[in-house]
Amino acid sequence: MKKRDDDKIIKIQDAVATLILTEGITAVSTIRVAKKVGIAQSNVYLYFKNKAALIDSVFQREMVKIKSAANFQQISDTSLPLTQRIQIYIHTIYTYAVADPDSLTLIQQIKFLKGENTANLVGDLAVDNLVTNLLRAGIQQKILKDLPVNLVMALVFNVVYNHSLNLRRGVYLEKDYGFAQIYPLIWDAIRVTAK
Amino acid sequence: MKKRDDDKIIKIQDAVATLILTEGITAVSTIRVAKKVGIAQSNVYLYFKNKAALIDSVFQREMVKIKSAANFQQISDTSLPLTQRIQIYIHTIYTYAVADPDSLTLIQQIKFLKGENTANLVGDLAVDNLVTNLLRAGIQQKILKDLPVNLVMALVFNVVYNHSLNLRRGVYLEKDYGFAQIYPLIWDAIRVTAK
Repeated sequence: MKKRDDDKIIKIQDAVATLILTEGITAVSTIRVAKKVGIAQSNVYLYFKNKAALIDSVFQREMVKIKSAANFQQISDTSLPLTQRIQIYIHTIYTYAVADPDSLTLIQQIKFLKGENTANLVGDLAVDNLVTNLLRAGIQQKILKDLPVNLVMALVFNVVYNHSLNLRRGVYLEKDYGFAQIYPLIWDAIRVTAK
Repeated sequence: MKKRDDDKIIKIQDAVATLILTEGITAVSTIRVAKKVGIAQSNVYLYFKNKAALIDSVFQREMVKIKSAANFQQISDTSLPLTQRIQIYIHTIYTYAVADPDSLTLIQQIKFLKGENTANLVGDLAVDNLVTNLLRAGIQQKILKDLPVNLVMALVFNVVYNHSLNLRRGVYLEKDYGFAQIYPLIWDAIRVTAK
């Protein structure tokens, strides 16, 4: 039985994600989700106590994906120089966004529903304060400008997210604007520069 | 009669704006707007053919506000050096956002409803291609990095908007992080820097 339940949960979450991505978060209702999965609406409530719990589980699923992104754990590898760890962070978020812009869209839409802004949104991307601590250390060591950490994280998120949407929509190709071009936009912004 | 009509239109738009800011764009309905203004729902349709037209008029109202922001016209003053005009653009958007973060929230929420992303959103802030042309000229003259113009505009918008929300929410005070601190985050990002 457990196995079947997990399958159903995944199908329900997938249906929620598809609805958000195709019609926007306001289109999500338990009745529409049930219809998409091909089950009775009351069955959705076997797995999720209400719509909010259902949407939150989709959010948590994206968070887990980000945490398990390649190299994400290197960010906390204190044997590496701090500057390099900050660069790994930027590269990891970039790679994740370009590979899966939908994931960031889901996160943004769900946060939007909760009435939270982008600056708070990226607070979640901090994941266990890993990124917050990294950036604070960068500021202390005068590698990074002395600025509110949530602004710095929002800048990283917004640049890579908007870039990934541009790529997805064919506004330009990654061979024309790739990591080599996007990275300085972020790095020059946040690093301490000579006057 | 004309006078009365205009007053009513403004009251209806104000009610829409209040609903968006307090409960989010999904809370907007002609019946709730009518109730807030104290008129019959059918009366709303005397002024706006449907909910979409109503919401769009609120959007256009914010666009007019931005266009009439102090110094905005200086951006196109070709007697000024290009670098200075770009700096005026950043300063103008900054001042506007800090004075009226609600305006940017309204714009963002309405664009969100239309399923458009932040990069497109700021396309509207280009206002008659004024900003687009300015940034393209900056790229051509190698003052600015050769990057997609919508990414550059999105960066400016996101930084000043998130900063203005931080101020509004008391995350920090403008005496601690003001234009002098926020400006280099934007300017260093977009300008051509020495390697």
